Amino acid sequence: MDGHNSTATDATMKLGEFKVHATDGHARRATLMTAHGPVQTPVFMAVGTKATVKAMTPEELKDCGTQVVLGNTYHLHLRPGEKTIARMGGLHKFMNWHGPILTDSGGFQVFSLSQLRNMTEEGVEFRSHLDGAKHFISPEKSMEIQMDLGSDIIMAFDECLKYPATDEEIEKSMALTYRWLLRSQAAMTRKESLLFGIVQGGLSLKHRLKSMEQICSVDLPGYALGGFSVGEPMHLMHALLPDVAPRMPANKPRYLMGVGTPTDLIIAIDSGVDMFDCVMPTRVARNGTIYTWNGKVSIKRSEYKEDPSALDPECDCYTCKNYSKSYLRHMFMSGEILGSRLNTIHNIHFYMKVMEKAREAIAQGRWAEYRDFCLTRFAKKDS
Amino acid sequence: MDGHNSTATDATMKLGEFKVHATDGHARRATLMTAHGPVQTPVFMAVGTKATVKAMTPEELKDCGTQVVLGNTYHLHLRPGEKTIARMGGLHKFMNWHGPILTDSGGFQVFSLSQLRNMTEEGVEFRSHLDGAKHFISPEKSMEIQMDLGSDIIMAFDECLKYPATDEEIEKSMALTYRWLLRSQAAMTRKESLLFGIVQGGLSLKHRLKSMEQICSVDLPGYALGGFSVGEPMHLMHALLPDVAPRMPANKPRYLMGVGTPTDLIIAIDSGVDMFDCVMPTRVARNGTIYTWNGKVSIKRSEYKEDPSALDPECDCYTCKNYSKSYLRHMFMSGEILGSRLNTIHNIHFYMKVMEKAREAIAQGRWAEYRDFCLTRFAKKDS
Repeated sequence: MDGHNSTATDATMKLGEFKVHATDGHARRATLMTAHGPVQTPVFMAVGTKATVKAMTPEELKDCGTQVVLGNTYHLHLRPGEKTIARMGGLHKFMNWHGPILTDSGGFQVFSLSQLRNMTEEGVEFRSHLDGAKHFISPEKSMEIQMDLGSDIIMAFDECLKYPATDEEIEKSMALTYRWLLRSQAAMTRKESLLFGIVQGGLSLKHRLKSMEQICSVDLPGYALGGFSVGEPMHLMHALLPDVAPRMPANKPRYLMGVGTPTDLIIAIDSGVDMFDCVMPTRVARNGTIYTWNGKVSIKRSEYKEDPSALDPECDCYTCKNYSKSYLRHMFMSGEILGSRLNTIHNIHFYMKVMEKAREAIAQGRWAEYRDFCLTRFAKKDS
Repeated sequence: MDGHNSTATDATMKLGEFKVHATDGHARRATLMTAHGPVQTPVFMAVGTKATVKAMTPEELKDCGTQVVLGNTYHLHLRPGEKTIARMGGLHKFMNWHGPILTDSGGFQVFSLSQLRNMTEEGVEFRSHLDGAKHFISPEKSMEIQMDLGSDIIMAFDECLKYPATDEEIEKSMALTYRWLLRSQAAMTRKESLLFGIVQGGLSLKHRLKSMEQICSVDLPGYALGGFSVGEPMHLMHALLPDVAPRMPANKPRYLMGVGTPTDLIIAIDSGVDMFDCVMPTRVARNGTIYTWNGKVSIKRSEYKEDPSALDPECDCYTCKNYSKSYLRHMFMSGEILGSRLNTIHNIHFYMKVMEKAREAIAQGRWAEYRDFCLTRFAKKDS
């Protein structure tokens, strides 16, 4: 049992093939074949921004059930540079992760992190947040970078609008995103990589459906929903997903970018989303926030000073098997690296377990039961 | 092969027994039996100041060949407190390290880290460097703390003088250290723990020998040399060791506290020292300095930006087997936790390998050859 719910048919799948094994409501249990092996969906992908999932080794990621790691095109372009990584043998070898890698387009970071953006039809000029140096990124450049990295799943270069945006801004932006998708497609020539298009359209159903029509008119191995988790109240996304996700092509993977909490994942799977990524489990771990089957735990609380119990009695991760809340609180209060490591191991393991159980539940036709169980459990507060 | 050069006789040894298997010049190959198993000497002990060897799990320490972990009485007393650790089952269980643990007396940190010390015959009043709270530590208190921690090797409470010190200061201090040793011995009632006395005497041979006579007149399972590595030029220690260490009791382990570089270790083993500890390999690792069989490497050097080779081609640690200098430089430049982890793994592994090979060389009667090989190799500079 590898924890990924692999299927017997994986071995015969072709690159880019997406096989839906079971559906339960809108929820789907499927497999996507990449150049670095099959991905069992629904899947949560661990974010490895700068060629490392913060605080984790690749072996620890695997032990936690991680299938796919994300790399960030913007960050890796600035440092150490995609040409350096290419000369070191590509991102897989560079970071010692030999499973599938997905890279984003750089668009999100260009719009959220960099300064002095000058956007034209051609692309975006920006200054590095590291040293102020001028850079230019376009659909073609984004494809070149991601191909140099040797990514298995390459994201089209899109404009990621801020929230809130006016109807006019949304329409203009999604039209540009569509034209940039066509240029991305023309520029993406690496046959081992799969190009995913990104549906935009803000938080308006009308625009989302229009953007989807545009983006999905281009035949691609997968489609993403971008522009969520950009500062909007999450209930708006929750309300929109059931009207949007199920209308995306049924025979292609659906990827909800940058989402989210365990509750977000369950709600999105319920609408038929297959793939997720988010910095949440790793980032909050370093700040001492732990996800458990009984809600969130803030490890710094003084009541844990002499608590000999594990973070989560239902968890079999390395952290829960070997360390008490008392020790983890001490590590956190002392600012120790091991605290960040142990919290991250637990959170990643927890996210992967939520997804593994989701795959099982969908395959066994008891998705609704599992969904309701999760939504009740995850809503519990620190007691 | 466990990498510790275990001997067939270990199984029959009694708690506190020290068996010298071979000598070569002054260098000794021996075994010390603790309540948590045998320690093969010469041994380098990894410093786990606040109940963690920074950036490492206990399993990684073991994989690197670590036999003994140090805990710091001063730090653990202040946070989380020895009573908390005792209630959590003791330091071994708390930190998930099930091999031998040595704790220092707290003296060194009281004199180097805390403020507003008021020293009397009775003990030392000081303010915590964390929150300014007043604390009092005495030989009796130090023993109580170390016994609460459940330490396998407990260090007597001593005064650690600063360098330089006058003859009068040295004499007064070593007399106090002797009286404190007698009180430490009377207070140390835990039968599973071994109490080591600490020889002081500054950098004067006369005073060292006098202190040794005092301290070693107390029958104890081991003796340490304290007050080195306190800011003095290291050549003074190197010059003194051959006149001091060989005169310590031959049938007891000799522990040189707080030392040192790989070169320091070789020089001290050559004078018959058996045990060492130092923050060096872990602290410099986090700052990007790597020890190798070809001298020190500073990983941030720009020449490593596209260097696909391992830190040390002669090393078989996890880091060297899986990562390039290029990647390690990128991790360091990006301030990533994984960089600290990988560098620390390498340095600890390197220190342990130097000691393992020393044990082999002494046992096989080729110590001088190994010593000279190390001293030549370690003197190499970053090319």
